[in-house]
This record gives sequence, structure tokens and C-alpha cells, in this order.
Amino acid sequence: MFTYQIGVEYLGSNFVGWQIQKNGLSIQEVLEKTLGKFLKEKIRIVGSGRTDAGVHAIEQSAHFKSKKKISDEISFVNSLNFFLSKKSISIIFLKKRKSNFHARFCAKERTYRYLIINRNSSLIIEKDKAWHVKKKLNIENMKKGAKVLIGTHNFTTFRASTCQAKSPIKTLKKISIKKNKDKIVLIFKSKSFLQQQVRSMVGSLKYLGEGKWQISDFKKIFFSKKRSLCAPPAPSCGLYLEKVSY
Amino acid sequence: MFTYQIGVEYLGSNFVGWQIQKNGLSIQEVLEKTLGKFLKEKIRIVGSGRTDAGVHAIEQSAHFKSKKKISDEISFVNSLNFFLSKKSISIIFLKKRKSNFHARFCAKERTYRYLIINRNSSLIIEKDKAWHVKKKLNIENMKKGAKVLIGTHNFTTFRASTCQAKSPIKTLKKISIKKNKDKIVLIFKSKSFLQQQVRSMVGSLKYLGEGKWQISDFKKIFFSKKRSLCAPPAPSCGLYLEKVSY
Repeated sequence: MFTYQIGVEYLGSNFVGWQIQKNGLSIQEVLEKTLGKFLKEKIRIVGSGRTDAGVHAIEQSAHFKSKKKISDEISFVNSLNFFLSKKSISIIFLKKRKSNFHARFCAKERTYRYLIINRNSSLIIEKDKAWHVKKKLNIENMKKGAKVLIGTHNFTTFRASTCQAKSPIKTLKKISIKKNKDKIVLIFKSKSFLQQQVRSMVGSLKYLGEGKWQISDFKKIFFSKKRSLCAPPAPSCGLYLEKVSY
Repeated sequence: MFTYQIGVEYLGSNFVGWQIQKNGLSIQEVLEKTLGKFLKEKIRIVGSGRTDAGVHAIEQSAHFKSKKKISDEISFVNSLNFFLSKKSISIIFLKKRKSNFHARFCAKERTYRYLIINRNSSLIIEKDKAWHVKKKLNIENMKKGAKVLIGTHNFTTFRASTCQAKSPIKTLKKISIKKNKDKIVLIFKSKSFLQQQVRSMVGSLKYLGEGKWQISDFKKIFFSKKRSLCAPPAPSCGLYLEKVSY
């Protein structure tokens, strides 16, 4: 058996999410079926983690095992992409890996990007690819909130009630918030994230930016460890899984 | 009569271009019809310049005259955008201007952006919004070519044969070429451009980047003032009118 890693770009808009589900088409399902057809064997894809319905990926990472040795990686990927790109999926690289490589368990760092367009008028170029926030956001206040989140904390407030992780304790290595004209880009780096953690944090940072919350409210709510106090999570269309490092 | 300036974002993919034409729908036509309905008078829109079929705008500038005084600009624009956004157009601002304001003749500087994605695999997130170039481009060689173009020159080589400008002489104020992973962004600034000038320059810079031309070929072809020697113009889907300054 050979072990292969793939880097995958996708637009999440038309999918129920990464993970195979009964209620609709997932990215994992499309990849397993397409790879299965090409390799003429049943292929099981293991992702670095799930992404929710509507969430995009610039570079999701996954692995699979196959009996076949893929010799010409570029032409193999080109053939796959001929079919995948019609479904808004593209394999951006394929690498042979050692047999103990695991896309989820070996990952050392995950980077998420969140895009907000902060203006009154409708989105055109970034439609379905960003959160359209009309009220002017105060970036300095959002940065103050981001500082509070950095480090090792109990993130229960920012965790979906359906989250299956054993512990709500995570270490956020980095958050950056940058504004260029009406574009606000938030970058989050951590070894791993809880379910809906990024969207919950962005929703709450947006409350800070709008002035709905003061920094004291933000801290109180974060340290309360009460999910019910979290701001509404930011919509999935603005979220991108940017990179998984090993 | 009142004079108004509008800033307009659009995805050019579904249009025959900015300018009204008999062979299909233009951005100008959609704007004139929509504004005409709202203002209940015939509206004539004057753009800062034409953009070709498929070319996008982050901020095209235009003006129109109306008998009506628009008092609440934000709610007026919101009502327009409710209809325009279905056609991939959004008015991003509306400003009252002095009666002698002219979107085309008063413009002091135009900025165009060109986006290349330089990788093997199919485009997903940037589909129809960038030029997909598979062969690895040498940015340093492209920058050498860009340097040659800066300044006042006869741009006949980089001008469509259908261009109606009186003179082929233009002054290019700035070209910047930046690469971030597989994204290459080229920025062009000039008081004005000839027809297909940016796409012709990008097509030729790409030949340099691919190694199809050396810098000596590039210079020879540029200074030859022969349109027939130009590389194939870059496709319109990668081009964005970014800003018009007054």
C-alpha cells in the first residue's frame, strides 16, 4: 500500500461540508468517488479536519492509501482536476508520504482566514466569499479582543454545543487583523480548533468592532465559559481553511 | 440639473463590456435603465472609459445629470443595488458634483490591476477572475520588462488595431509586480491607457516570464512600434479597473 497526501482547494458554497453526510454532497464524497474511479479501488480519504457547510479551503490537506503506485503525479492530478473542477474542487498537489503519515493526527498547525467586507453597498466580486458587514467596524477594538484570545484558554464560549472534542482547552498561537480599504482579513493559527471556534470568535470580535460590546463585556463573556453568551457565529461563506502544516 | 458621480463595482463576465452595444448587454445599459426607472427621466451615463467584454471593475467611475435632487444618497443607492446586484453590478458610492465634472475628461489617473494565478492545477476560488498560467513565470524577468515600459513612449505595439486614440504616446507612471505564493498581481498607473494596452503589456510580460522572449526581444518588439509583433493579449478575465482619481 502507498500513502499519498493531497492539498485541496474548494468553494464550500454547494456542499454540506467536508465530511460525508446523508443529507447532501460533501467534498470528501466527491474526492473518494473520483479517486476510486481513477484508481479502480475503494478509496477512503482522511482530511486534516472537517469544514462546515459553506466553508471554503485554499489548501485543505488529506491523505489516502492505494495499492497503485502513482508515477506521473502531474498528469494524474490534471486528469482528476478535469472532473473535480466542474464541482468547484481542485487538487493542488499530490505527494507520496511515509505509511505512518496521517493528515489529521500529524498536523502541527492549522491556519484559518476570515474575510469581512465592511461597506454599505452589495458585494459583487466577493459575493458568497466574504461576510458583508454594513456597520463600520472599529478595528482597534477588535484587535484588543484578539489579544485576549491569544494563548491557552478554555474556549467553551466559542465552541459549538455539538462539538465532540474531549477538552475545550486550546492554544491560540496567533490572530492578525488587517484592514485594506473595505476588506478586513483575520488570520487564526492554532494546532487545532474546536467546532465553530473561528466563526464564534469572529462573530464576537464583530460585536466589539460594532461597539455592541466593550472590551470588558468581551472578557466577561469569554471567561464565563457559557456558550449561550457568545455572539452569533460569523457566516461560513467568509471562512477559508488556508493551510495545514506538518 | 444636478451632476452626480458614481463609483461602480462589476463582474464583467456576463457583459459585452462597459459601452452600450447592439450585440448584447453592457454595464452602461443596465445602469442607464435602472437609474432611469428610479429617477423617472432618461439618464445618460458617461464612464471614465470603456472596459472590454469580460473585464471587471473594483471601482469604475461615471457621471450622470438629473433634474432630481437626491437627498438621501445611502437609501437611494441601497434601492438601486437591490436590482443591480442581481446583474453583478453594485454602486459603491454616489456623490453630488459641480456641473462641470466629467468622469472621463477630469480623470487624472487610472489604476488597473491584473491577476495571474501561476500553478498547474485548475482555478476554483479565482475562476473567471484571473489568468491561469501553468508554466512557472520568472518574476525578475517580468520586472525587467516592466522597467522598460515606465515613462513616456509610443505604445503602438501594445495598442489594439481598432484603437481610436489620436496619439499612441502615453506616459506610464507606475507598474508594480508582486508575487505571493501562486498569485501574481500587476498594477498599472497612467493618466490614460490605449485600447487593450494593459492586456497587451501583460501578454508580452508573460512571454518574458516564460522565457519565450529575452529582455532584448522585448525591447526590440516594444520599440519596433509594430502591433503584429506583440504577444497575444492577456485574457480579459484577469483585468480589473481598480480606481479612477480626479
